[in-house]
Amino acid sequence: MLSVSRWKKWALLCAPVLASSALLWAQMPSQVPVPKDNPQTPAKVELGKKLYFDPRISITGTVSCNSCHNVMTNGTDNRPVSAGAHGKLGDRNSPTVFNAAFRSVQFWDGRAASLEEQAKGPQTNPVEMGMPSGEAVVGRIEAIPEYRQEFLEVFGGSQPITFDHIAQAIASFERTLITPNSPYDRYMKGDKSALSAEARRGLELFNSIGCTACHGGPMFDGPSQPMGTGFYMKFPLNTDNEYVKKYDLLADTGRYQVTHQESDQHMFVVQSLWNIEMTAPYFHNGSVKNLEEAVRVMAKTQLDKSLTAGQAKDLVAFLDSLTGVSPHIGMPRLPETPNTTILEK
Amino acid sequence: MLSVSRWKKWALLCAPVLASSALLWAQMPSQVPVPKDNPQTPAKVELGKKLYFDPRISITGTVSCNSCHNVMTNGTDNRPVSAGAHGKLGDRNSPTVFNAAFRSVQFWDGRAASLEEQAKGPQTNPVEMGMPSGEAVVGRIEAIPEYRQEFLEVFGGSQPITFDHIAQAIASFERTLITPNSPYDRYMKGDKSALSAEARRGLELFNSIGCTACHGGPMFDGPSQPMGTGFYMKFPLNTDNEYVKKYDLLADTGRYQVTHQESDQHMFVVQSLWNIEMTAPYFHNGSVKNLEEAVRVMAKTQLDKSLTAGQAKDLVAFLDSLTGVSPHIGMPRLPETPNTTILEK
Repeated sequence: MLSVSRWKKWALLCAPVLASSALLWAQMPSQVPVPKDNPQTPAKVELGKKLYFDPRISITGTVSCNSCHNVMTNGTDNRPVSAGAHGKLGDRNSPTVFNAAFRSVQFWDGRAASLEEQAKGPQTNPVEMGMPSGEAVVGRIEAIPEYRQEFLEVFGGSQPITFDHIAQAIASFERTLITPNSPYDRYMKGDKSALSAEARRGLELFNSIGCTACHGGPMFDGPSQPMGTGFYMKFPLNTDNEYVKKYDLLADTGRYQVTHQESDQHMFVVQSLWNIEMTAPYFHNGSVKNLEEAVRVMAKTQLDKSLTAGQAKDLVAFLDSLTGVSPHIGMPRLPETPNTTILEK
Repeated sequence: MLSVSRWKKWALLCAPVLASSALLWAQMPSQVPVPKDNPQTPAKVELGKKLYFDPRISITGTVSCNSCHNVMTNGTDNRPVSAGAHGKLGDRNSPTVFNAAFRSVQFWDGRAASLEEQAKGPQTNPVEMGMPSGEAVVGRIEAIPEYRQEFLEVFGGSQPITFDHIAQAIASFERTLITPNSPYDRYMKGDKSALSAEARRGLELFNSIGCTACHGGPMFDGPSQPMGTGFYMKFPLNTDNEYVKKYDLLADTGRYQVTHQESDQHMFVVQSLWNIEMTAPYFHNGSVKNLEEAVRVMAKTQLDKSLTAGQAKDLVAFLDSLTGVSPHIGMPRLPETPNTTILEK
C-alpha cells in the first residue's frame, strides 16, 4: 500500500548523518512520501484543496478541514480544543496539518495509519464535522455538479465519487503543505549565522538533557518509522509534580482508548516540533498556553528536570528556529450549486 | 464624509443611458465609490484582508467575516441563516459581500450607512462573532505584535488600533470584491451572443412585468441613492397568497425594528441581483431554496402575478446572466502570536 521501499531508501540515506554526530539530526526531508495507490497529480491536489476548504462536507455547512487546521495560521486554530458543527467542542488539541505528510501515524493516539485514513475521521465525528456517514459526505459532493465532473476527471471509473476518493484528494493536497527552510534547516546546511547564540545554546541543551530521546529524527518526533507505525511515549511519565494536576494531564488515557491495553495507558504519539512556535496552545489537551511553560512541563514530567529560567528561554529560542516557510496557497473557488443550495438550517 | 459628489457625477453620466431605453439599464459601475475619510491604499487593503479572514476577532476564535461571507463561495455561506460563535444562529440570511461596496446601505434593514459601519456589527453581535465590545476587539488585535506594526504603518498616529480603523481596513478590502464581466455586462457592451434566447426573453419579461420597478439601476437594487440612503420596499406586499405562510414571510418586521415607525413594518432594502444565481437560499429569512421558486414568490407577492413555468425559467436564465467573474484572492498569512495563544476554551 504505502511506499515503504522509498522510506527505507530515505532512512538509509539519513543513517550516516544521524550516526556522524549526536547534534547532527537530519533536516526536514525534501521529498514527501506518497502512497503507491494515491499518486500526486496536479488535478487531484487542486480538487483536494477545494474539498479541504469546503464547509459543505460538514453537517451544518459551517466547518471545513481548514476551520481547525487553518493554513492561514500555520495549519492549526490556536485553540485549546477545536469547535465543530453546532459549536460542539472536541477534547484534544488540533495538531497542525503542516508537515503532517511526513508523520508515520496521525492523531494524538496514532489511530490513523495515513493522511487518507485521518481525513475521514473528522468528517464523521459527531463533535467535529458531524456527518452521519461517509455515504452522506458522498451525497453532498454528488449534489454539486462541478465536483462530479472533477472527480470523474481525477479518478475516472464507474464510481468516481467515493469516501475513499474524497480522502485521497484531501490527503494529496495536504502533502503539499510543507514548511522547509527554517533557520534550523539553514543552520544545518552550513549557515552558522542562522541561529542566535541563545538558540545554539538551546540546541545543545536540547541534546544534552535528553529531549532527543523522544524528539529526535528528521521530524523531531522520534526515530523514523515505517508509515503506519507510531512512536509513542507515556505522558506524563513522572506524576509527582505540580504540573500534572495544574494542567489535568492524567484525565486523558491516550492510546489506551484505541487499544484497551493497560500498557497503552497515557501513551501518546510523540509530537513533531517543526513550527511549534506557531502552534500554541500545547499538549494533547491544549492546556498550556505558552511554549516556555510547555518546555518546563516537559522537562519535569518526562526528564524529571527543573529548568532554570535561562535554560527554558534557550530551549524556546532553539524551538523557535524550527519555524519553516509556510506554503503559498491560492484561494480556491468552490464549485457551486447554481440557483439552489444543499444546506439546511 | 462620503464621496457624494462622485456619486452624483456618476448618476449624471448614467442618466442618458437610463433614459434612452427601458431595457438599457446601466451596467455594473467600473469604479467603486470610496469615502473621502477612508482612501484605498494597497497596505490597508492587505491589512483588511487579514482581518477579514481572522477568526480571532470572534469571542471563540472560530468565526471570521469570511465564515458567513465566504469569498470562496461568492461571498456568502449558502445557509438559510448563518451560524456564529458557539454555533448560535442568526435570524436573517447573510447577504453576499461581493459588490456590497456599490450599495448605498448595508444589512437587510439598511441600518448601516456604509461598509465601515456594517463591519462593526457582526463583531459585537452576540449570535455572530460575539465580542463583548469594540474595545475587546481592539484588545485582541493589540495582543498580536505584527498587527500592531501594520496598523502603525497604515494608520499612524498615537492610537493606530481603534475599532474604527479595524472597520476601515476591512471595508477597504471589501471594496476590492467586485465581480465584473458577467454575460449580461458583455451583452450590454454589444456582445449579443452573450445571452441565450431564453435569457433574452427573461430580460424582456423582467422589464415588461414590472420587476424593474424595484430592481432597476446599475445594481438592480433600485434607483441610485446617495451613500447612506436606502431604497426600501414592503415584502411581502400582497399577503393573500400561499407563499406568505409557507415561507413565513410576515414573521420579520424588517426596518420597523430599526425605526419603530409603523410605516416601516415589513420594509426591507431591495436586494441587488448581481450573482443571485450563486447566493441561494433566498429572501431575508433564507426560506426559499431555489431561484425559480423565489422568482415565483416575488412575482406573486410583489406584482400579484402568477408566472407560467416557461416565464419563471426565462427569468432565471436572465438572472443567471448576472453572474460576474469572482475576484482572484491570494490566501493571506495571518499574523501570529509566537510561543503563545490569545484564545481560550
